[in-house]
Amino acid sequence: MKYNRIYLKNSLFLHFIFTFMTSIQTQDYAIHFNENCYTNLNQQIEKKNYTSIFILTDSNTNKFCATQLLSQIETETRIEVLEIEPGEQLKNLETCASLWNALSELGADRKSLMINLGGGVVTDLGGFVACCYQRGIDFINMPTTLLSIVDASIGGKNGVDLGALKNQIGIIKTPTMVLIDISFLGSLPQRDMRSGLAEMIKHGLINNPKHYKDLQDLSKLTLEDLDRLIFDSILVKKEIVEQDPTEQNLRKTLNFGHTLGHAIESYYLNHPEKALLHGEAIAIGMILESYLSHKILGLDTESLNEIKSLLTKTFGHPKIETSDFENIIELMKHDKKNENGVIKFVFLEKIGNSKINQEASKELIINSFEFYNN
Amino acid sequence: MKYNRIYLKNSLFLHFIFTFMTSIQTQDYAIHFNENCYTNLNQQIEKKNYTSIFILTDSNTNKFCATQLLSQIETETRIEVLEIEPGEQLKNLETCASLWNALSELGADRKSLMINLGGGVVTDLGGFVACCYQRGIDFINMPTTLLSIVDASIGGKNGVDLGALKNQIGIIKTPTMVLIDISFLGSLPQRDMRSGLAEMIKHGLINNPKHYKDLQDLSKLTLEDLDRLIFDSILVKKEIVEQDPTEQNLRKTLNFGHTLGHAIESYYLNHPEKALLHGEAIAIGMILESYLSHKILGLDTESLNEIKSLLTKTFGHPKIETSDFENIIELMKHDKKNENGVIKFVFLEKIGNSKINQEASKELIINSFEFYNN
Repeated sequence: MKYNRIYLKNSLFLHFIFTFMTSIQTQDYAIHFNENCYTNLNQQIEKKNYTSIFILTDSNTNKFCATQLLSQIETETRIEVLEIEPGEQLKNLETCASLWNALSELGADRKSLMINLGGGVVTDLGGFVACCYQRGIDFINMPTTLLSIVDASIGGKNGVDLGALKNQIGIIKTPTMVLIDISFLGSLPQRDMRSGLAEMIKHGLINNPKHYKDLQDLSKLTLEDLDRLIFDSILVKKEIVEQDPTEQNLRKTLNFGHTLGHAIESYYLNHPEKALLHGEAIAIGMILESYLSHKILGLDTESLNEIKSLLTKTFGHPKIETSDFENIIELMKHDKKNENGVIKFVFLEKIGNSKINQEASKELIINSFEFYNN
Repeated sequence: MKYNRIYLKNSLFLHFIFTFMTSIQTQDYAIHFNENCYTNLNQQIEKKNYTSIFILTDSNTNKFCATQLLSQIETETRIEVLEIEPGEQLKNLETCASLWNALSELGADRKSLMINLGGGVVTDLGGFVACCYQRGIDFINMPTTLLSIVDASIGGKNGVDLGALKNQIGIIKTPTMVLIDISFLGSLPQRDMRSGLAEMIKHGLINNPKHYKDLQDLSKLTLEDLDRLIFDSILVKKEIVEQDPTEQNLRKTLNFGHTLGHAIESYYLNHPEKALLHGEAIAIGMILESYLSHKILGLDTESLNEIKSLLTKTFGHPKIETSDFENIIELMKHDKKNENGVIKFVFLEKIGNSKINQEASKELIINSFEFYNN
């Protein structure tokens, strides 16, 4: 689908945007929004005649969203709800093994369907569980957090962490479909909402100055604006991924802020008193990597300061202890983007324009921590 | 590649067969034989400029084959040998987790190559480990047993067992290439050689009466005959898989003998004093399912008796205790071919002609055990 940006706010165009926002078609699957998502889900269940349906969710999500989803499914097929404890700590192989055993004991077969209802942990882990159960069963992702909506809806990345190393184990496989019910966001704590905004801001920074600009003053946004911004943000990612599905070049730009951001997230995962949400860690990573961009690719000072100001205003400004610098840098050595042990970054030349396969000296990285802290 | 059978044994034609047998090209990758396999491996390593090479093997295989392989690799790239204990008991998620941790600690990155050198356990498990490490690194399979050569070379099935349930966790992904050095078979115990023959006989029974006939009197075979029979057998499987890569219909015929055979193999895996090799269990499964074919699809009595005679002569005739019947039938309930809890079989209408999605009553299955035992 070709997307045209339409910002004229008369009723005719608003109606057009609304119709338009019912689905996004990717090369392999569709993303359906709001009421449209339940219609499509029921059609899929009827068409494929699944032998059983397994809804994976966590105890946070279950409370708010599973009831809504269950009330909308129209089928005689057996439905089982599998609930895991919430949190990144359980995104590991042990949880996968428990789920594979549960599926096996509950008689899931190759014609079963799995619906992953939750944030990124549930969709990443549930996707991986479905892809590997009996060499792959159909799965549908229903992200319920802003972060998983704008990030995990596109790209087909599934997987789990290996110890402190994020997403070290996984595969790329696209879901049967993605369902987005924006009303689920109403139940999300403010901190989690902000967290998702980090990925949206990243989409703007690496590829789309207009999208970045739209996200500048979030305090003035209405709910309708958010709907449109989410749609825009998914489209930015979709266009990047479709141009480079196997992550040879352009798709790597989506890792902006993630080389340092992931290491920070991993490091604080083992120090629960300082634990950061993914988006909060990525926001810090984007400030650090913008500083490196400034030093290495000449990103201008004004943009650098604007990025730092926007991100600290939105995500807070937790300081990073000098004694943690070394440990965080050490963790980057396991980053999946590395080649031959050399740590690779994505840097910005200017806002909306990014460059892959960048490197930075340890000294400069330490400087970036100091720039962030001050 | 289109294959023509050439049986004229004058020197010109033999030379042609030899040249011909250097490679089989599938839709996604090539299978290279004998000296040709090392040439192609070295070309691949040079072309892709891998950052490191990991050879996965088991302590049995290592002794005989790793030295040969290592002596043939010409590269400056770092090579690490990862050795696991041999045996189906270790084809599980715990072994995968150990290997993923080892790869991570040894600094494997996305541009690393994994070579799986061993029998079906090593290629199945190693393929799965490679497919999921950092969402997939290149892997090359080098099967060293007759069974893994004729079975695991084609089809892209990777995975591990979940408790007693065979291959419950895995994915389908084809390797970068498959290398077959027939000279490795010289080090294989006679019992393991026979085990591989079961899959070759199956290829004949389901699809190619000529191939089945060629395998009738194995005592008269020369080593050259074996070379040709292996090549033929891989081609039978290749043609089946390429016509139905996603296992919707024709490919399912490859499960002949496996519904009961897998259950028998799984059951005796937990009773080590009676443990059977995969091929031995499948041979029993083929006799049982030929009996069911006779009762349900009218496979003629002469063929049934000929199959039983050939298989018991080749694989021995261990009796199945009456007290084990129920337990084996119970294990079939987890077979991946089942739909809605109904156990599905492949039966023969006649030799070379098979039919999928068949069912059999419990009474008839018990009769088949009695037919086998007597």
